[in-house]
Amino acid sequence: MAKAKQRLPKRVYQARADRLRADLLQLQLELKQVPFKVLLILAGPEGAGRGTLLNKLAEWLDPRGVETFSYHPPTDNERAHPQQWRFWRSLPGMGRIGLYAGSWYTETLREEARNRRALRHVADEAERIRDYEALLADGGTLIVKVWLHLSKEAQGRRLRTLRADPATAWRVTEEDWHHHRIYDRLDKTARLIREKTDRPGARWHLIDAEDERARDLAVGQLLLKRFAEQKKRLARLPRAKAPKKLTPLRPAGLRRLNALPLDQELSEKDYGSLREKWLGRLNRAVRTALGADRSIVLVFEGWDAAGKGGAIRRLTSAIDPRDYSVIPVAKPTPEEKHAHYLWRFWRDVPRNGRLAIFDRSWYGRVLVERVEGFCRKDEWRRAYGEINDFERQLTEHGTIVLKYWLHVSHEEQLRRFRERETTPHKRHKLNDEDWRNRRQRAAYEIAVGDMLALTDRPNAPWQLVPADNKRFARLEVLRSASRAIEAAMKL
Amino acid sequence: MAKAKQRLPKRVYQARADRLRADLLQLQLELKQVPFKVLLILAGPEGAGRGTLLNKLAEWLDPRGVETFSYHPPTDNERAHPQQWRFWRSLPGMGRIGLYAGSWYTETLREEARNRRALRHVADEAERIRDYEALLADGGTLIVKVWLHLSKEAQGRRLRTLRADPATAWRVTEEDWHHHRIYDRLDKTARLIREKTDRPGARWHLIDAEDERARDLAVGQLLLKRFAEQKKRLARLPRAKAPKKLTPLRPAGLRRLNALPLDQELSEKDYGSLREKWLGRLNRAVRTALGADRSIVLVFEGWDAAGKGGAIRRLTSAIDPRDYSVIPVAKPTPEEKHAHYLWRFWRDVPRNGRLAIFDRSWYGRVLVERVEGFCRKDEWRRAYGEINDFERQLTEHGTIVLKYWLHVSHEEQLRRFRERETTPHKRHKLNDEDWRNRRQRAAYEIAVGDMLALTDRPNAPWQLVPADNKRFARLEVLRSASRAIEAAMKL
Repeated sequence: MAKAKQRLPKRVYQARADRLRADLLQLQLELKQVPFKVLLILAGPEGAGRGTLLNKLAEWLDPRGVETFSYHPPTDNERAHPQQWRFWRSLPGMGRIGLYAGSWYTETLREEARNRRALRHVADEAERIRDYEALLADGGTLIVKVWLHLSKEAQGRRLRTLRADPATAWRVTEEDWHHHRIYDRLDKTARLIREKTDRPGARWHLIDAEDERARDLAVGQLLLKRFAEQKKRLARLPRAKAPKKLTPLRPAGLRRLNALPLDQELSEKDYGSLREKWLGRLNRAVRTALGADRSIVLVFEGWDAAGKGGAIRRLTSAIDPRDYSVIPVAKPTPEEKHAHYLWRFWRDVPRNGRLAIFDRSWYGRVLVERVEGFCRKDEWRRAYGEINDFERQLTEHGTIVLKYWLHVSHEEQLRRFRERETTPHKRHKLNDEDWRNRRQRAAYEIAVGDMLALTDRPNAPWQLVPADNKRFARLEVLRSASRAIEAAMKL
Repeated sequence: MAKAKQRLPKRVYQARADRLRADLLQLQLELKQVPFKVLLILAGPEGAGRGTLLNKLAEWLDPRGVETFSYHPPTDNERAHPQQWRFWRSLPGMGRIGLYAGSWYTETLREEARNRRALRHVADEAERIRDYEALLADGGTLIVKVWLHLSKEAQGRRLRTLRADPATAWRVTEEDWHHHRIYDRLDKTARLIREKTDRPGARWHLIDAEDERARDLAVGQLLLKRFAEQKKRLARLPRAKAPKKLTPLRPAGLRRLNALPLDQELSEKDYGSLREKWLGRLNRAVRTALGADRSIVLVFEGWDAAGKGGAIRRLTSAIDPRDYSVIPVAKPTPEEKHAHYLWRFWRDVPRNGRLAIFDRSWYGRVLVERVEGFCRKDEWRRAYGEINDFERQLTEHGTIVLKYWLHVSHEEQLRRFRERETTPHKRHKLNDEDWRNRRQRAAYEIAVGDMLALTDRPNAPWQLVPADNKRFARLEVLRSASRAIEAAMKL
């Protein structure tokens, strides 16, 4: 049996720890200024000391700037949402470090120890986590993943030492011994997980956990190093700027948009009776879907003054107020701005049996952010895929996703702007930004076209709604939502 | 059968509605400046039009400043928290109006219609809600409660009219007819609920719901009126100011504090073995309690530099990292400041099977806020009762609540401040405020004494911990927490 390695002498440790603590506190001060989140994920076998390391970090860091997360088996509320929902909900707030001790990685190993699972299943879960981490890392989040390595021999020594002293024997559980006995199997699974999830932006760092002092210092120093690198890396990135001229990625989308006829007629009388009919159909379809524990997400995008609000209110008049929520999407708050752009939408993803209506949405990333240059080119270009992926996660969970683009002509929009200007209770709906957006119509048309071409998927289709005639548009939304939900529910 | 009343003519309605809308938008602008939240609760029998009224309000108001809430039967996560937890979680954010359509009141009536309950049970629930509303109202929240009144005859007329037209017949459900048939019984229950919950700050307003137009105008105007009154009322309140001199409410508390001996000794060696022994006991006690689905709340208060952080870290070293969270309580954020002072603590109340450690707590209300004059005298005086009530709700749910005051002498505190000044990695722990607090020692002692005298309850006792000797204090916390949890679990 290999002998225990030499421990770092206490004096040496103390001096290094004192310096490290001062540096970590400096890092925490800087963290309040940087535009990215920091996640520190601690994983490793039983006995590698995640708990004591966590306590050490709580001592070294200013605890007001730390949030600790751990994962338990999902609650029923979590299960009533798409799988990744709970991970999106456990991200640290602005200026704080997120510490993950009982992380997903550890839970998987515990689970594996209790109940051997097919490696295929573990690999599937690892891939989902890899994609999630990649998304966060692409968005600028610093993810530091530490695997605390402890050999089978060192683990055995640690367990036996603890057991030998009556005062510490309670620290060793039956589960620990079980993990020790099946060390090799767990180690193999752990290696598979690490391989699958070791990707740029979310690399694993193996740190020897045998000497507690050296281990703690190494983790602290790693955090410092990776933080400095990330600051440098992000500072080197080009600044986002407004493009001089937009070029379509997929001209077919723009052609589809321009081909939409806008001259529909619908009399008030016809509208009245048709509306009630389709409200009834919608009511029945929605009740059926929600009653079957499905959830529904409706996305409304469109030109300013296209009538999104009115269409939404007609639609909700057919739905039990307890069953839906309308999420008006305004400019991001400082906290939302600091997070990944999808974060605030994940927050409002409805649970099973509920319907959520987004009045504007995550498509802001490829519309206003692209046109106004609020994000870099690589960011909005990547967003089409990220959004498709997000919506795929919703629909794979069973959510019905429907997206509406309300289309008004340039002339009709002007007429509505003028009406807003002259009506006291509508004036608040019009501001300088609306006029500025209006002047950018050509650029927005290109962005809308690309959005239609690149994110119109069978699982989450776009519906183009001619909206120069408000009555027609409202009816069209009712009709198309009813039919789509009926089709999804096979009514 | 009584005839339908004359409806408000459309022209008259339109003119009034336009004026009202402009006024409501003005209210929403002002709402961003005022230091209180606005809740509008809509209740009433089926057919009184809560849904359409909600839609109307969504049209009139700027939807970005509105949050809509409704209550469903509690989820398992909600049931794993004290009863009022879910209500605390559904309060609007800063500058927003909270609209409650499917409110608690309506749910109770639906429930009663399905399954007749003892009026006694309804009355109990009504009293809980009354207390909650009183707490919010005392804290400055504007609560506008509207009961949409619809006579049995008018309800019947409305249901029959809807049924007669094939296009609207779907709007009338079997449940509606059932409610109609048992109108008198439901009305009696509704009256009981209204009586029980009609209190200053949370009065019921009965509004006739037969004429939709008149109903909608009346609700809008009521909101305007009550908002203006609340602004005026709050403006008339005296400003909070720092007291010149503190007078004890209950001198016994101060005497108890001053009688605490602080000269305990504990050698490093004795500490080492006793610590491990008590960590083991604590580990077992906590595992037993959490395993039995109980939750635990530990509160740490004490002088600056009394060693709260160190005591907490020793304690957590005995607990599985997945089972506990430490909540460092700093100055409230703008959002927390805008809410009721208990709101942020309710947010962090642990679910069954978890332990939460509050590093400072709701006692700030009667300590720093009292001494520094951050709240008015009537506010901190009321707080003792509010806090006892809050903790009673926790313990009635089954939560084990333990509170620690870490007591250091004025001299020992000075020694620790000086040490912090000269140690680089401890310097961040000391700031001007600590020195300022130190000069206020006498005032704080009075506040601490009153806190001990007024909030030391058998269900949530205070433990005074002599903390001049850090080792002794840490051990004392371990010992007392272990014993208290063991006693609660009858170990």
